[in-house]
Amino acid sequence: MASYGLHGKLQARAGQGTELASILLEAAQLLSAAAGCQIYLVSLDTADPDAVWITEVWGSEQDHDNALSVEKVRALITRAMPLLAAAPQQGQQLQVIGGKGLTSPAES
Amino acid sequence: MASYGLHGKLQARAGQGTELASILLEAAQLLSAAAGCQIYLVSLDTADPDAVWITEVWGSEQDHDNALSVEKVRALITRAMPLLAAAPQQGQQLQVIGGKGLTSPAES
Repeated sequence: MASYGLHGKLQARAGQGTELASILLEAAQLLSAAAGCQIYLVSLDTADPDAVWITEVWGSEQDHDNALSVEKVRALITRAMPLLAAAPQQGQQLQVIGGKGLTSPAES
Repeated sequence: MASYGLHGKLQARAGQGTELASILLEAAQLLSAAAGCQIYLVSLDTADPDAVWITEVWGSEQDHDNALSVEKVRALITRAMPLLAAAPQQGQQLQVIGGKGLTSPAES
């Protein structure tokens, strides 16, 4: 079975990109320990200082959804929301079939 | 310094997506050992069976460019090219500042 991947952008209000990225790095640390979290990357957009990209790989979509309900994660989301210029949209969904960086190998 | 990320799509000719993905999984295995390769994921598009996504994180852009010149990697590219419906375009470039899945921590 493939792993569940998500790749999406969060757009901060003008000048708030660094603060948003810092909250997301906290989220990354928290989610690292969540069941099924294989990859959680925080990236800056090379063209837009207020855009932050999140790239996630989970064992399953259920693992991802479960992690979002953890109280500390919800607290970080609450801190991040006022920094956003627009409501977050669902990222691009991917079926990750293998490669380097997965903590448990995906099977196609 | 941030790590160098790339996220991009390779579009196979109709019916060739599985074959293309299989070549890219071979490439992933080869590149796993390349200097600076931190992440190299091969994913299927949930909406298009002939689209394959590659998500890469390297220590630097130079590490990425160096790996492309390795002879065995070039041989795989040569095998993959006839399967493509269009010339590969440069993927989205990202400055990966941290998170889970990096083999050496990126520093922002």
